[in-house]
Amino acid sequence: MVEAALRSGRAGRDCVFEVFGRRLPGERRYGVLAGTGRVLDAITAFRFGRAELDWLADERVVDDATLAFLADYRFTGQVEGYREGEVYVPGSPLLTVRGTFAEAVLLETIVLSVLNYDSAVATAAARMVAAADGHPIAEMGSRRANESAAVAAARAAYIAGFSATSNLEAGRTWGIPTMGTAAHAFTLLHDSEEEASRAQVAALGPGTTLLVDTYDVRQGVETAVRVAGTGLGGVRLDSGDLPALVREVRAQLDGLGATGTRITVTSDLDEHTIAALRGAPVDAFGVGTSVVTGSGSPAAGFVYKLVARRDGDDGEWMPVAKASTGKASIGGAKRAERLLRGGVAVAERIVVDDDRDGLPEAPTPADLTARALTVALMTDGEPDARWLGPAGVAAAREHRAAAVAELPAAALRLSRGEPALPTISV
Amino acid sequence: MVEAALRSGRAGRDCVFEVFGRRLPGERRYGVLAGTGRVLDAITAFRFGRAELDWLADERVVDDATLAFLADYRFTGQVEGYREGEVYVPGSPLLTVRGTFAEAVLLETIVLSVLNYDSAVATAAARMVAAADGHPIAEMGSRRANESAAVAAARAAYIAGFSATSNLEAGRTWGIPTMGTAAHAFTLLHDSEEEASRAQVAALGPGTTLLVDTYDVRQGVETAVRVAGTGLGGVRLDSGDLPALVREVRAQLDGLGATGTRITVTSDLDEHTIAALRGAPVDAFGVGTSVVTGSGSPAAGFVYKLVARRDGDDGEWMPVAKASTGKASIGGAKRAERLLRGGVAVAERIVVDDDRDGLPEAPTPADLTARALTVALMTDGEPDARWLGPAGVAAAREHRAAAVAELPAAALRLSRGEPALPTISV
Repeated sequence: MVEAALRSGRAGRDCVFEVFGRRLPGERRYGVLAGTGRVLDAITAFRFGRAELDWLADERVVDDATLAFLADYRFTGQVEGYREGEVYVPGSPLLTVRGTFAEAVLLETIVLSVLNYDSAVATAAARMVAAADGHPIAEMGSRRANESAAVAAARAAYIAGFSATSNLEAGRTWGIPTMGTAAHAFTLLHDSEEEASRAQVAALGPGTTLLVDTYDVRQGVETAVRVAGTGLGGVRLDSGDLPALVREVRAQLDGLGATGTRITVTSDLDEHTIAALRGAPVDAFGVGTSVVTGSGSPAAGFVYKLVARRDGDDGEWMPVAKASTGKASIGGAKRAERLLRGGVAVAERIVVDDDRDGLPEAPTPADLTARALTVALMTDGEPDARWLGPAGVAAAREHRAAAVAELPAAALRLSRGEPALPTISV
Repeated sequence: MVEAALRSGRAGRDCVFEVFGRRLPGERRYGVLAGTGRVLDAITAFRFGRAELDWLADERVVDDATLAFLADYRFTGQVEGYREGEVYVPGSPLLTVRGTFAEAVLLETIVLSVLNYDSAVATAAARMVAAADGHPIAEMGSRRANESAAVAAARAAYIAGFSATSNLEAGRTWGIPTMGTAAHAFTLLHDSEEEASRAQVAALGPGTTLLVDTYDVRQGVETAVRVAGTGLGGVRLDSGDLPALVREVRAQLDGLGATGTRITVTSDLDEHTIAALRGAPVDAFGVGTSVVTGSGSPAAGFVYKLVARRDGDDGEWMPVAKASTGKASIGGAKRAERLLRGGVAVAERIVVDDDRDGLPEAPTPADLTARALTVALMTDGEPDARWLGPAGVAAAREHRAAAVAELPAAALRLSRGEPALPTISV
């Protein structure tokens, strides 16, 4: 596309591309945007190095003029959009990229890869956090996701309200609290469950969490308390009929005097099995596969569409949109606001620039307030430092908590349904 | 675990860890193993650098003895397993890692991350290849997967029989044929569909594939042939009621004299929609989201379990296994063979070393032949070069074709069901 646009003389036309989703994954009630900070890093670092250019030349993928363009490539445009951690609904203009056609079209894949995966994880994770009803949840799914995706998943889950991750690289890179567990292999390595428990307590102290289901849970709990004392920090259950088992283990621990010992469960949990454990005496959850795979919706389904460009004749901005069956888009650059009544969100207002004269005025009715959703993310190719690194992650996590708290109660239902907020286009 | 095992004196015990799946994802009939070559690269490169060690020390994640162990870490053990591209069923011993507890247990996450994702993609992709019935399929899903996972997905899909990828980095790194398409943005950039078509043909010649559904398909096809001539290479349809639309477009192309122009379809395809297009005059498929997300099963569900270790008393090997409810495993190191009758696979024979005396003899009945499935992958920490890089990918693709060709016809059914091959443990 870049090569053909360079030849047709259209590569330098100013363009506006927009990221949005046509629907929410899994007919959920709301989505949580994640990945924005990583997108800004990725755009800033987006270059074609010697190895890439040589390969493109050797394979004759593009012509010499295009190679020269790619060799000098560096994004110099503007990016605005929703804050990371923001709640979104179908049609929300999540990220708007302004630049020439050639410089902006090249970013489609990296922008969508990051946002589609990270937001799928965050959207699923937010439901698990709600289901856990205030109990801490740790992300433990690295083994069930691509090795780089695993780090991104830990980050997205933390933004969505998870309390910690077992992925140490995510801790190092993004400042996320880390935790670990002992696997069954640790028990099996030793000559007995008791020897394994003693080894763990000797290394980590009685405040550690012992895995008690390698052989027989009742025996495992008895051994754990005998070895660590009634000050044992916790026991972990990774199998079995959890609601019943958790009650039995709680009663056994209390009977042994270990009334302060916490019960952590980790057994192919998702938002539904977590919700089913409400009322059971679970202290903490560990979630693996379901969170890193978006619990049935592993990609958020975002697209990156050209919505406006300078006109060929008069240089004025004009909205553009395709008309493809079932995939039509709304032309024009956009900004968005969340309308609230008494602090509760009631609608997503999307203001569309479809008249070439800048964004129209959108008066807010007296009983509503409007919270602006669109913020500057990158100016002339320079990212706003507030959204980057561990500080960006911490800010996104805080923002997510506030944005979710604004939602009407019906938004927290786990069943399939309509988006929690209607969209009003102005 | 490493810290506690170093303290308990068990860290140096020789261990055997095994990768296997308890069931096939999505109740499919067979799986396709992918990622082995990437695992060997990852194990070879697995190190703790200064930045990682400093962070672990600063955060007091582990003690000084463990830091010293990690600083010197380099895997020096043995790895054997199924060839990349091999067909597998539940219980197949896909990868066996032999080393001390400490050196082998550290590899769990990286080994599983790679194999779980890559094999999920390859297993889904192989079904799409079968559904396409000899027509080429291109992988175009990078935008719907984490940015690093996207490269791995292109590789796994190619091993499973896809013909090409739109991911240029996968082409550069793994020697996979690449292709590209023009997006709707390219049409919308220009003043008219005709101008866009002319620009593309000018740059890429009349053999290119033109996207014809930005506005009206009938008009788009008419314009495409007018601009490129009857020698137009192809048209792409990305929306609409495909079976009917494809027939209409074929008739229109033929009526215009463009009888050699190929029709490519790309519209949220998966194995089922591809199968539903059998009989329609489609020449080639492009698949995105469904292949990079494993078409409903984004992780293969493999686990990495300790199956044998040296005994504490006599230093003899002993099988070990946990007994957790619903998650029991079979102790002992294993090798596997595929039993065939007249060239058709009939069973997976798994020979288990559960008597400490090495693998037992397993005589093959006269009417069957046995194909060994377990090969050496890494010796004393050195990977076998045959399985690495583009040559490894090419070998895996070829091996997958041969292994799938051995399967009984029922294995190619798309419906949910039992594994195509029963497992016999000896």
